[in-house]
Amino acid sequence: MTYEALFEQISQKKSYLCIGLDTDIRKIPAHLSKTADPVFEFNKQIIDATADFCVSYKPNIAFYEASGSKGWESLQKTIEYIPKSHFTIADAKRGDIGNTSGLYARTFFDPSASGLEFDAVTVAPYMGSDSVIPFLEFENKWVILLALTSNPGSGDFQRLQADGTHIYEHVLKISQNWAGADRMMYVVGATQAAEFEKIRTIIPDHFLLVPGVGAQGGNLEELSRFGMNAHCGLLVNASRSIIYAGSGVDFAQKAKHEAQLLQQEMAVYLDKYCK
Amino acid sequence: MTYEALFEQISQKKSYLCIGLDTDIRKIPAHLSKTADPVFEFNKQIIDATADFCVSYKPNIAFYEASGSKGWESLQKTIEYIPKSHFTIADAKRGDIGNTSGLYARTFFDPSASGLEFDAVTVAPYMGSDSVIPFLEFENKWVILLALTSNPGSGDFQRLQADGTHIYEHVLKISQNWAGADRMMYVVGATQAAEFEKIRTIIPDHFLLVPGVGAQGGNLEELSRFGMNAHCGLLVNASRSIIYAGSGVDFAQKAKHEAQLLQQEMAVYLDKYCK
Repeated sequence: MTYEALFEQISQKKSYLCIGLDTDIRKIPAHLSKTADPVFEFNKQIIDATADFCVSYKPNIAFYEASGSKGWESLQKTIEYIPKSHFTIADAKRGDIGNTSGLYARTFFDPSASGLEFDAVTVAPYMGSDSVIPFLEFENKWVILLALTSNPGSGDFQRLQADGTHIYEHVLKISQNWAGADRMMYVVGATQAAEFEKIRTIIPDHFLLVPGVGAQGGNLEELSRFGMNAHCGLLVNASRSIIYAGSGVDFAQKAKHEAQLLQQEMAVYLDKYCK
Repeated sequence: MTYEALFEQISQKKSYLCIGLDTDIRKIPAHLSKTADPVFEFNKQIIDATADFCVSYKPNIAFYEASGSKGWESLQKTIEYIPKSHFTIADAKRGDIGNTSGLYARTFFDPSASGLEFDAVTVAPYMGSDSVIPFLEFENKWVILLALTSNPGSGDFQRLQADGTHIYEHVLKISQNWAGADRMMYVVGATQAAEFEKIRTIIPDHFLLVPGVGAQGGNLEELSRFGMNAHCGLLVNASRSIIYAGSGVDFAQKAKHEAQLLQQEMAVYLDKYCK
């Protein structure tokens, strides 16, 4: 999917919501446990219920991998089921030496190898340029590079300063040499205005994938106000607050309600801040 | 496997060789392509031929994942086939927020979830403490944390300096708070004496997983001389130079020969430098 096509979807739906399909086999409503593939059945119903209110789906690969080859089958069925209108993100946080990152890129971008085809994959920056560039060799595919994450440990290394600049800012700056805003996004878990403003001086045009509304507790208005650019420039992710909104037979309806509430709020912020 | 049991294996075999099972379906000898699972058949013959000369096997997960669920089946068969005497490393370079890293830990350490059970997994440090600690909650299992890698991009962020100290040294220092030498190792792709000496002042007792003999071209004597401690403290990996030593029906014999040559060299260095 191109930058323009993604913005077109956002404009049409008045939504920049990404739904995290972090489907934990241990948390699936009991009535699904008898189906042939409970994880896929759960995802299918979530997708049917929420597709009108989001522009992106993001399965976190850990949740599938933890069930071994069976989990990979559920993942494959899920990615095939998601409508082509939606931007798909493999939240895999991969990264290895050049030729090996090339294999990870095949995993998520080349269905003739793995059976999977996503639009984007999240990549960890620690190993540097040659661990990221192989993902960019696939046409129209995206890298979403970890910059500033929102977890407690993000301070350990990402906020160390080299030459007066945080390591996560070095990541933003150095990676500009690898691809432009049409092929790269960044995971930015910032919640403070000052941080977003600094980040936007380095990468004014890029999309940011922002975790942390809902269960992780970010403030959607704040991050929209300070993070948005003239092409929206944000994909805001919610996972547990949507997919586990209910735990009974009506779980998909409950998920739909949560997704719709977020979309309605996003419509307001697009109108106010997307300029 | 415990620190002591690993050193016992090293002492018995006079080897600190780790063989990287980076098995690329596109590089497997032609005569195996007709078997039911060519990747497993290849690994099986490599393991049979080399088990006497190495103490560890390290499948790089990218090579399996690139074939989707089928690749995970080959991986599962491989890990079940490796003798229990060998230290098994899932070279996965994973890392995510706390609860998600917990799922990656289940993937590689909990066979009731994924069908896989390794002794250790490689983990990327970028996301900090809560991305690493969940792996340490599995008894007798190891984290091998990326510190200084050997690829061209390792300079981009790992060698930035914060407060006069390289980021990779911060990784070595900060991670001391998470576990000791009995549960944690480090990926160190250093080849220069001065670097090893500096690293050994920070972590005198830990095992280092060192890539880069063979195809990546490190000097085995240099790194043994400066990296070894009184319990060896090194696992030196070779992948392509062993597993692709031959490409015909005798590929396993060729692999055996290469592994044996490295083991014989290692026996000399253990005698000289392990003190």
